[in-house]
Amino acid sequence: MNSFLDLLFTRHSVREFTGEPVSEEDLETIVRVGMAAPSAVNIQPWAFVIITDRAELDSLSAKLPYAKMLDKASAAIVVCGNPEKDPQFARKFWVVDCAAATENILLAVHSLGYGAVWTAVYPEEKRIDIVRKACGLPDTIIPLNVIPIGVPRNKDARAVDKFKEENIHWNTW
Amino acid sequence: MNSFLDLLFTRHSVREFTGEPVSEEDLETIVRVGMAAPSAVNIQPWAFVIITDRAELDSLSAKLPYAKMLDKASAAIVVCGNPEKDPQFARKFWVVDCAAATENILLAVHSLGYGAVWTAVYPEEKRIDIVRKACGLPDTIIPLNVIPIGVPRNKDARAVDKFKEENIHWNTW
Repeated sequence: MNSFLDLLFTRHSVREFTGEPVSEEDLETIVRVGMAAPSAVNIQPWAFVIITDRAELDSLSAKLPYAKMLDKASAAIVVCGNPEKDPQFARKFWVVDCAAATENILLAVHSLGYGAVWTAVYPEEKRIDIVRKACGLPDTIIPLNVIPIGVPRNKDARAVDKFKEENIHWNTW
Repeated sequence: MNSFLDLLFTRHSVREFTGEPVSEEDLETIVRVGMAAPSAVNIQPWAFVIITDRAELDSLSAKLPYAKMLDKASAAIVVCGNPEKDPQFARKFWVVDCAAATENILLAVHSLGYGAVWTAVYPEEKRIDIVRKACGLPDTIIPLNVIPIGVPRNKDARAVDKFKEENIHWNTW
C-alpha cells in the first residue's frame, strides 16, 4: 500500500486535545488544501473562517451541543457555503462542494499530525444562527460545519476499519 | 511540504482516458478508502456500485449529458446514499457523508496513478432515474454521482492552484 492510502485509511475523528497550539501557517495550509477540492463547474462556492480566538472558541463550545470539545481545541475552521455565488450550480451543489472541501481539510489536519472532528451545523437552523452570530457571517453565507482542531491527547488512537463487503455492488445492485 | 499534502494539492479532474484497464483489486481499494470517510454519528449511509461492464458504461455515457467521458473510462463508481439507514441522521446528512466518501475516492484514484472526475447525479431527478435503472438500484437508494475512472491520457496535466486569499476570514468575517 502506498503511504498516501495509508494516511487516507488512518484519518479518524479526534475529540480530545492537549491544548498545544496549532500554528497560523499550518491553519492556512489546511484551508489551502480545502480550496483544492473539486466543485461543480469549478464555482468554488465556499469560504472559511479560521477561529483562533480563545473567547470565541469557548463561547461556541458553550452554545453548540455537538461541539463541546471546542473548549480544548486550539483552533477551529468553519466551512461556509455561498449559494449566491452562482444562480444555478452553487445553489444546487454548494453542500457537496463544501463537504468535499471539508474532507480535504480533515485529511490535511491528519497529515500534519493534528486531529479534528467534523461537527455539523447546516441544516440545523438554531446552530446556523449561533455560528452566524459568533463569526459575523452575512445572511447569504451558510455555515456547513465547525471543525475543532488541536494536538490529539491520545497518541495511540487508531482508525477503525469500516470496510463492509455488503456496501459494494459490481455492475448491478 | 509533506508528500501527502502534495498529493492533496495535485488531484485534479481527469476527463480523457487512454482506455487502459483499471484492476478490480485497485477498484476495491478505492471503494475501501471511500468507506474510511467520516459520517454523521458513524451511520455510514452509503453504498457503491462499481461498473466495469463495457455496455453499461457506454449506455450511461449515451444517456448522461455530463458523463460522456464514460465511453472512454475503464470503470466507474456510483456513490449512492441510503437515507433510510437511520431515521434521523442518515436522512439529514447522507449527502455530506457521501460527498466526503466521494472526495476520498477521488484522492485514492489519484494516489494510484489513475484519473477521475465527479459527475453529479442528485438532485437532478432525470439523472437519478437513468442511473437507478442502469444499476438496478432500489427505490430507497439515491445515486449522488457517477465517477468515471481510467488512465489519464494527458500525463502532463497539472492541478490549477485555486487558493484565494479573500476566501479566508480570521475569527470574524
